[in-house]
Amino acid sequence: MKSKLFPLVLAVGIAGGAVAQVRPEDAIKYRQSGYGFMAWNMGRIKTNVEGGNYNKEEVIKAANAIQAIANSGLGALYLPGTDKGKGWEETRAKSNIWTEQEKLGKAAMAFNKEANELAKIAQVGDAAAVGAQLDKLGGTCKGCHDDFKAKK
Amino acid sequence: MKSKLFPLVLAVGIAGGAVAQVRPEDAIKYRQSGYGFMAWNMGRIKTNVEGGNYNKEEVIKAANAIQAIANSGLGALYLPGTDKGKGWEETRAKSNIWTEQEKLGKAAMAFNKEANELAKIAQVGDAAAVGAQLDKLGGTCKGCHDDFKAKK
Repeated sequence: MKSKLFPLVLAVGIAGGAVAQVRPEDAIKYRQSGYGFMAWNMGRIKTNVEGGNYNKEEVIKAANAIQAIANSGLGALYLPGTDKGKGWEETRAKSNIWTEQEKLGKAAMAFNKEANELAKIAQVGDAAAVGAQLDKLGGTCKGCHDDFKAKK
Repeated sequence: MKSKLFPLVLAVGIAGGAVAQVRPEDAIKYRQSGYGFMAWNMGRIKTNVEGGNYNKEEVIKAANAIQAIANSGLGALYLPGTDKGKGWEETRAKSNIWTEQEKLGKAAMAFNKEANELAKIAQVGDAAAVGAQLDKLGGTCKGCHDDFKAKK
């Protein structure tokens, strides 16, 4: 389960445990928080890569935050029934998250793989390599959004 | 700067760089996201410790996420003027964040220290030790909130 973003089986399976005690609106808020914080970190890596003023330490911190959130198991926050509801804002999670689990699992694993790779590459400090890997990571975000997140 | 949560000097100093390109409302949203995601992870560590069903792997993931966010440099999101404004919700950052920098710096460093320690202790897998360290971490959260965050 280690590298899966959406351990749905786990989420369902541990009813009575940690996840079950999270209220649906909080689960939505928490996952929106995770994505929101990753968005900041992806944005500042992009700025570092494109801005002509690369700060290796800042990129490492940002990549580490993305990696830790990606590996945190936030898929457990997709509680059954939370395709509707308001966290910070109304969720845009599509209901096929709960029905297309194999497809979702592949998307989640791809995302985690690229996030782990980004953290590794950030340690080297080569801006071009980081930029290329950030594009790969962004591709996995977009792929998942296209399939599983409603447009605004 | 590595262990500082609020590198205010840096935030001010790199105007024109990465931070300056973040809009105030986004900066507020991003920092609320960081704290929101840490809240989830602190909550589930607490549940693991108190629930009689300790899951070492889950606690490690949660502690790693808290650590990476704490060390991400999110103090840079306290842009001048963002003691007012709405991210996900209206900010409750008090204006003394921008005037009591020495006190703030100490609070931030204490928080980071305890977050790093929690991630280290989580690796061992002793529930009682994790619980004690979670309390220490929570104490630094509360201390900072008491001084620098307006009540609801």
